[in-house]
Amino acid sequence: MQSNNRTEIATLGEFGLIDHLTKDLPLQNASSLYGVGDDAAVLNYAQKKVLVTTDLLMEGIHFDLVYTPLKHLGYKSAMVNFSDIYAMNGTPKQITVSIALSKRFFVEDLEEFYAGLRLACAEHHVDIVGGDTTSSLTGLAISITCLGEADEDEIVYRNGAKETNLVCVSGNLGAAYMGLQLLEREKALFGNKTDVQPDFSGKEYLLERQLKPEARKDIIDSLRKEKIKPTSMMDISDGLSSEMLHICKQSGVGCRLYEEHLPIDYQTAVIAEEFNMNLSTCALNGGDDYELLFTVPVSDHDKVVAIKDVHVIGYITKPELGSALITRDGQEFELKAQGWNPLEDK
Amino acid sequence: MQSNNRTEIATLGEFGLIDHLTKDLPLQNASSLYGVGDDAAVLNYAQKKVLVTTDLLMEGIHFDLVYTPLKHLGYKSAMVNFSDIYAMNGTPKQITVSIALSKRFFVEDLEEFYAGLRLACAEHHVDIVGGDTTSSLTGLAISITCLGEADEDEIVYRNGAKETNLVCVSGNLGAAYMGLQLLEREKALFGNKTDVQPDFSGKEYLLERQLKPEARKDIIDSLRKEKIKPTSMMDISDGLSSEMLHICKQSGVGCRLYEEHLPIDYQTAVIAEEFNMNLSTCALNGGDDYELLFTVPVSDHDKVVAIKDVHVIGYITKPELGSALITRDGQEFELKAQGWNPLEDK
Repeated sequence: MQSNNRTEIATLGEFGLIDHLTKDLPLQNASSLYGVGDDAAVLNYAQKKVLVTTDLLMEGIHFDLVYTPLKHLGYKSAMVNFSDIYAMNGTPKQITVSIALSKRFFVEDLEEFYAGLRLACAEHHVDIVGGDTTSSLTGLAISITCLGEADEDEIVYRNGAKETNLVCVSGNLGAAYMGLQLLEREKALFGNKTDVQPDFSGKEYLLERQLKPEARKDIIDSLRKEKIKPTSMMDISDGLSSEMLHICKQSGVGCRLYEEHLPIDYQTAVIAEEFNMNLSTCALNGGDDYELLFTVPVSDHDKVVAIKDVHVIGYITKPELGSALITRDGQEFELKAQGWNPLEDK
Repeated sequence: MQSNNRTEIATLGEFGLIDHLTKDLPLQNASSLYGVGDDAAVLNYAQKKVLVTTDLLMEGIHFDLVYTPLKHLGYKSAMVNFSDIYAMNGTPKQITVSIALSKRFFVEDLEEFYAGLRLACAEHHVDIVGGDTTSSLTGLAISITCLGEADEDEIVYRNGAKETNLVCVSGNLGAAYMGLQLLEREKALFGNKTDVQPDFSGKEYLLERQLKPEARKDIIDSLRKEKIKPTSMMDISDGLSSEMLHICKQSGVGCRLYEEHLPIDYQTAVIAEEFNMNLSTCALNGGDDYELLFTVPVSDHDKVVAIKDVHVIGYITKPELGSALITRDGQEFELKAQGWNPLEDK
């Protein structure tokens, strides 16, 4: 955000800026009939159901531009919305992108943000079909709405988990949270000194999990290929505990998760030790994982464990048994939603 | 926003707050299959095309809570999105609502905001199907996305205006802008003194136009009843000049508007004089009118002038004639987009 060779946004104006950022946006999807440039976009969902999800990201709450490159922020902003559509067992097709900017942003900053957005959209074949560009008194606000499609009988809600179902997660947990701890520590150490380059070597994976999460389309594809339809599913944004409790509440069931089966990457474990943090707590409550949490009938056990990067971590119980974690030494602890809660943290 | 008898948002938490605000939201539309409570809403648009529009409203830029009651803000936030759907000749059906709040807001403030949203939605038979509730470091941010429906052959874009078409507007122009001037003047005079009540008697209409605009569904209904399909249409949010230039640019045409035909309310004229402002400038560039601007074939003249509250203000020309206002004394002035531009004002 230095001002050398930077273009003031006022030189383009609102409509000029929108034209500049949204030029060369050929629509890729048959369902995108008309994109940017009118009062509304026009879409065709005659054959499928429409899925709609939205996120509002605020500077200082959801992201810190001291260590978040704008290109990564654009990528992540889109990706977290795609993740919600995949978590319904659907396919993302369109997004609208609204941004509010304060005076300190230049046209080039927005170009970076849009480069990240476009990359995420290209990887998932999603069209940018509209939005709003405006100003803010302080900081950056980003609101993305994603539309996706699914056949009605393919849609997976949070409310279908049944007793004896297996609880599964994709990937591993807690890595994005440890990446955030690393970034926050370096920020505290180095402040705004731009001549010092922090050494993150060997920790790149954790940073990438925080700054550039990937929506798990591959898992959805694998489940479909194996003809497994989860009984319930959601994506993990606020931490495994919080999301598991959503599924249990909406499905009217309980669960038992096994600490020893929580999938954790080696780097996550190393850094948790370095920070003197409890590793399972990081995995349960860290958040920002954007992995998929889902339940399947026990009869799908063999098929589901054969899918790369899917882990069975527990099972669904009767509701009266509550929701608990069973530790390595066999103790039971009630699951609590201690995930990231922006409205309680402040 | 006083704290007597106020409930801290932290006492409910994010999910508690969402549950509280979104309880008792029965879905009214057949196209709303599943609303709040999962990763995404599920909609059925098998019979119609989907229209999507979105707006991001920032405190201090788009609204001032010193003189904007939160209930009005909720109402207006929804209404401006409905207006975009009507401007495509469609019908709004669903909205998602995202809000980011700073510490100074209480649960009761959000209840007020939602009361306004719900009122607007009830009047236009729109379902609230999702959203995001989070926090901000400073101020309030509101992002609303509206989905609507239309038959493909009913949709009216900005790009269909043809030479000799009549240019029409609904209602009157400049009133919301004069309402804003009044509110800003009282704010400057009284500041934060809460014991003084400004006297707005006789000016209520202007305040209402600013604080509680109405999307012109009635005009869309009348046009349909008269079997008039506009050749182009948009809603007036940034001022008549700016919107007219959008239509001319996208349609590849020019226009002549007549100053004497600009529809202006009596109260607007009185206050413009009091403020020593040029009345036509207010009508052309004021913004926030949320009236409809549209073009129709000249053969529809008799039918269109018979519609209550529709005014013919000019006609479409060849592009080489440019876009101009013809004043009362017969002079031609090129139309310029001097409407409200948040990215240039700051």
